[in-house]
Amino acid sequence: MPLIVQKYGGTSVGNPERIANVANRVVKGWRDGNRMVVVLSAMAGETDRLINLGKELSDDPDPRELDVLLATGEQVTVSLFSMFLKSQGIPATSLLSHQARIYTNQAYGRARIVGIDTARIREELKKGRIVIVAGFQGVDEVGNITTLGRGGSDTTAVAIAAALKADLCEIYTDVEGVFTTDPRVCPKARKLDRISYDEMLEMASLGAKVLEIRSVGFAKRYDVPLCVRSSFTDRPGTLVTKEDKDMEDILVSGVAFSKNDARVTLTRLPDRPGIASRIFNTIGDANIVVDMIIQNTSIDGFTDLTFTVPKGDLKKTLELIGPLTREINADQIHSDENIAKISIVGVGMRNNAGVASRMFSTLAAQNINIMMISTSEIKISCVIEDKYTELAVRELHDAFGLEVARPRGTLT
Amino acid sequence: MPLIVQKYGGTSVGNPERIANVANRVVKGWRDGNRMVVVLSAMAGETDRLINLGKELSDDPDPRELDVLLATGEQVTVSLFSMFLKSQGIPATSLLSHQARIYTNQAYGRARIVGIDTARIREELKKGRIVIVAGFQGVDEVGNITTLGRGGSDTTAVAIAAALKADLCEIYTDVEGVFTTDPRVCPKARKLDRISYDEMLEMASLGAKVLEIRSVGFAKRYDVPLCVRSSFTDRPGTLVTKEDKDMEDILVSGVAFSKNDARVTLTRLPDRPGIASRIFNTIGDANIVVDMIIQNTSIDGFTDLTFTVPKGDLKKTLELIGPLTREINADQIHSDENIAKISIVGVGMRNNAGVASRMFSTLAAQNINIMMISTSEIKISCVIEDKYTELAVRELHDAFGLEVARPRGTLT
Repeated sequence: MPLIVQKYGGTSVGNPERIANVANRVVKGWRDGNRMVVVLSAMAGETDRLINLGKELSDDPDPRELDVLLATGEQVTVSLFSMFLKSQGIPATSLLSHQARIYTNQAYGRARIVGIDTARIREELKKGRIVIVAGFQGVDEVGNITTLGRGGSDTTAVAIAAALKADLCEIYTDVEGVFTTDPRVCPKARKLDRISYDEMLEMASLGAKVLEIRSVGFAKRYDVPLCVRSSFTDRPGTLVTKEDKDMEDILVSGVAFSKNDARVTLTRLPDRPGIASRIFNTIGDANIVVDMIIQNTSIDGFTDLTFTVPKGDLKKTLELIGPLTREINADQIHSDENIAKISIVGVGMRNNAGVASRMFSTLAAQNINIMMISTSEIKISCVIEDKYTELAVRELHDAFGLEVARPRGTLT
Repeated sequence: MPLIVQKYGGTSVGNPERIANVANRVVKGWRDGNRMVVVLSAMAGETDRLINLGKELSDDPDPRELDVLLATGEQVTVSLFSMFLKSQGIPATSLLSHQARIYTNQAYGRARIVGIDTARIREELKKGRIVIVAGFQGVDEVGNITTLGRGGSDTTAVAIAAALKADLCEIYTDVEGVFTTDPRVCPKARKLDRISYDEMLEMASLGAKVLEIRSVGFAKRYDVPLCVRSSFTDRPGTLVTKEDKDMEDILVSGVAFSKNDARVTLTRLPDRPGIASRIFNTIGDANIVVDMIIQNTSIDGFTDLTFTVPKGDLKKTLELIGPLTREINADQIHSDENIAKISIVGVGMRNNAGVASRMFSTLAAQNINIMMISTSEIKISCVIEDKYTELAVRELHDAFGLEVARPRGTLT
């Protein structure tokens, strides 16, 4: 009997009516002869409501207690969901993280799953029941409740699918799948039928918020076939899967963009060993994630260093490196919040040298200045002025012909 | 170091401001050098909100899933409470039922505590922390969440106090203690400084809803000194404790009343062995609790049988016994919802024969007809027409001189 893990996000279970609607979809899968495990998020808005409640009692809520508070969100949805199924005569049971035995480390608010003991889930499946698991949460080794951070329910679903060796993990959300770019920005955006894990990782980390990035990494590592689709339609969605020969024929699969970062530049930095590591150690110790880093070739023993950090961390970053740059006699610190990062992603570009130059010339044709460039095997990112974001996305989408599904990628 | 268990009800933690207020009271006890365990209910209204949410998905919510849903209520308050304490620099930790290891049977919605493994609570106390435990809930032996029923947090507090051999268990509520009768009915009602477990049991079961009745039974069995007091004042409250010599000198400690029951009378029942048991087995199998039962002496081989059931169960009771009475040739079924039960309670009445007659003559003086009478060692109850309830309570309160705290009870 095939085993399917389905995950439904906050908007899909946003009110009792939607819960009933989604439950009927689950029942259909079950009647079709599948064993079903369902992972649920909190109702849309509930997590924010709980956070605000916490803030009424503490400006800086204790992380352990915040996780206990937030975990109630999924507890409510799984109980309501199971209740509905049982009232329809369908055998079902809800399992919270301590019951489903989803073990994490103790990093409250951003815990990582370290293991799942599937005995209880298997036992319930064996009884013919649909198993409804609370997403987003786990327990540490002594039973403290932890949460996985925003989007954590995706990770719960994929981790359970991996642990159970499920035949398919379906992530239901409010969009129909993974698109070549954001349809709100580019009306020609097209839903992809398939995308490789690696492409999805680049797309997700670049701000295409369809799937939580850790879940994709998990799916890749354990080879879990992942399907992203909408809970509001019956259309097939996007399959995220292992790379195969056909995929390489597509040069570029999508255009991603993000306006979440700010740029910091240090000018006339002494070009000595250890300077960069002091700077990034200081920032890293404050849990600030640096994304792009560019250092120019040294001139006269001095160099310029540019990097990006999340906008919300810019103030703290400047506070941290201010004293440091004075100490090491750097010239000045500049920062800029009005930037955007535009990226093109595709496994096919690995074997094709013309992709980067086409990206640059497309932007140049619109007089869009490129401030920073970074590349990986399957991605090229450019930092530009943020006011050009939408224009750049549309032009790149056109330039790489993404509105048409093509069997073979070409540069013509 | 003395160990105190405090329990705060729903109105005491009804909003963030009240939580902060109550927390300061807990901190005071802790600063005074006590080890503190705090048991919390859900915020007032929250349990009803959750039940209504459940009813949107199922007319008859599955008991297991309803308990999972309801348990979130206390989970929210314990996390907020601990968060507040920690933000004040006070060491604290919240514990849910599976963490505090409060084990129950599997009777969802009305579970009984079968044991508490106090290891984790003791460990947290040893670390100097205030331990905040979710009331009302437990786990069965395989980790399913259960709830104890309305008022269950009182039982949680007393059970923990018993298991930890606490020096005192304080139940904080929105009234100042146990009164001689309901002050809303009788303005002369007086707060009692002390009351015995047995008297409290009779008062609670008769509708004086200050303490949940199971918690009093628990306290009596394990000899836990219990103090009922208000979280909104600093007054001392009522101590519920073992009976002592002084208490016996008080004939009557209080007047309780209840309008929750309805009366059922079966006339001309054949007076044969087995008839009563068939009737009460049928009712008992439907989980309907019969309170008073009166059967008259047989005349000509026939008898009348009268009993009371909760008003909400009257319809079902009549449906159940209708076919039965036809089958056994009873004459008729009468029922009456307009009744009230008035009771006087006091350990002193055990040794004094004049109490019952004073009760009856007090009611007779007001032309109040007594429909049923039942007695225990320390209680006399009369069923009367419900419209006389308030009059009867006030007259009995006067007749036994309850407005004055007397060192020795007399009938003068």
